[in-house]
Amino acid sequence: MNRRRRVYEGKAKILYEGPEPGTLVQHFKDDTTVLHPKKTEVIDGKGVLNNRISEYIFSQLNRMGIPTHFIRRLNMREQLIKEVEIIPLQVVVRNIAAGSLAKRLGIEEGTVLPRSIIEFYYKNDELDDPMVSEEHITAFGWAAPQEIDDIMALAIRVNDFLSGLFLGVGIQLVDFKIECGRLYEGDLMRIVLADEFSPDSARLWDSQTAEKMDKDRFRRDMGGLIEAYQEVARRLGIMNENEPTRPAGPVLVK
Amino acid sequence: MNRRRRVYEGKAKILYEGPEPGTLVQHFKDDTTVLHPKKTEVIDGKGVLNNRISEYIFSQLNRMGIPTHFIRRLNMREQLIKEVEIIPLQVVVRNIAAGSLAKRLGIEEGTVLPRSIIEFYYKNDELDDPMVSEEHITAFGWAAPQEIDDIMALAIRVNDFLSGLFLGVGIQLVDFKIECGRLYEGDLMRIVLADEFSPDSARLWDSQTAEKMDKDRFRRDMGGLIEAYQEVARRLGIMNENEPTRPAGPVLVK
Repeated sequence: MNRRRRVYEGKAKILYEGPEPGTLVQHFKDDTTVLHPKKTEVIDGKGVLNNRISEYIFSQLNRMGIPTHFIRRLNMREQLIKEVEIIPLQVVVRNIAAGSLAKRLGIEEGTVLPRSIIEFYYKNDELDDPMVSEEHITAFGWAAPQEIDDIMALAIRVNDFLSGLFLGVGIQLVDFKIECGRLYEGDLMRIVLADEFSPDSARLWDSQTAEKMDKDRFRRDMGGLIEAYQEVARRLGIMNENEPTRPAGPVLVK
Repeated sequence: MNRRRRVYEGKAKILYEGPEPGTLVQHFKDDTTVLHPKKTEVIDGKGVLNNRISEYIFSQLNRMGIPTHFIRRLNMREQLIKEVEIIPLQVVVRNIAAGSLAKRLGIEEGTVLPRSIIEFYYKNDELDDPMVSEEHITAFGWAAPQEIDDIMALAIRVNDFLSGLFLGVGIQLVDFKIECGRLYEGDLMRIVLADEFSPDSARLWDSQTAEKMDKDRFRRDMGGLIEAYQEVARRLGIMNENEPTRPAGPVLVK
């Protein structure tokens, strides 16, 4: 059924060869994985929601002139993207203390940070994505100093825009993870946003109640993950109330 | 009744000496003025709404680490601000063609611009705020090249955050005008956002209907200005439905 070449398979997504050179198809799985505590579960319909949410966010970022790999959504689970050379870093932007930062530095979860903080983690499953500094990144050649500057500038623009967007829909953008890639166009190379933006990779708290609307619901066994992701999509105005997010049958990779 | 020293009076605002050195009180009037066509009217309650809307926007920008002159709102029509040296430029950020840009360049109003465009106008009432370039600004010493860079970086951050915020509440941020000032703190000087952000100084269109929710309603004799400003405040979540915006009696400057 699937004759496309699989380029990469990660924990929550698969990348296939795209229809044209320089493109890929990004497929969103229902697999839900966290590292602390280490566990995986298939949560029916999550991939469909993340595909839609990420499509919306990346489209809006493109519109703002914040460069991303996103071209267009293809179907319920897939989107067409530009092929980029992924920089092996998870770039985390934090506005409010939560998760590992709260734990490591002994700051109460929910504390507003003195300013937004950008952290880098080395993407490596076997090592559980260890935190690294600019020293490690440049010494091991994962990114050049100018690229780190470009990544940080990109991360700040994404944070400015998305903090505003989520504030407008009654959600606090507590923190989020992005990945960046090198996009080669002719002789030019530029750093663009890659991967995805979804409640899998961000902490989103309801502005009024501080209720969690993200993967922490799974990480902390709170239940209601799909309902929370649906509510995020609904507030962003991208959920057609009558549209199924859980397809009746298996999703065929055409 | 008013023993405070009036430092400056503009078309829509008055600045008074503040309670401490380095502070000013910014008072929002109901006077509504446009240059093309040239006309002024007192629109009852506009100053109160703009004081609230500008308070909300500047507070959120401060929270994002985008520096502004705003300290806190004092009462219905006044806010406490840091005294800055105003740079005599109106900085206009445009996302969608409208107003003078549409007319001057023959672009249909509503056309999404290829990228956000920053324009500078020389603040001078007698000259009707003429458009100027970086050449004029540096030649006449209104701002240094590094200051222009800082102003542009600030303008982009403001546009990123506010485009997101207004998108979240169903409003297109078409364009807006900001002013910047030099804030002196000890030996340090930095460029901060000054003046205000309100529907007086921005074009705000409903995302669904493209209905105008800004001063163009007055400029184009469409009526319903106060109702539109109230709707902007309501969507931003800052209108207490029962709170009067039009005080029963005259507002006393205490």
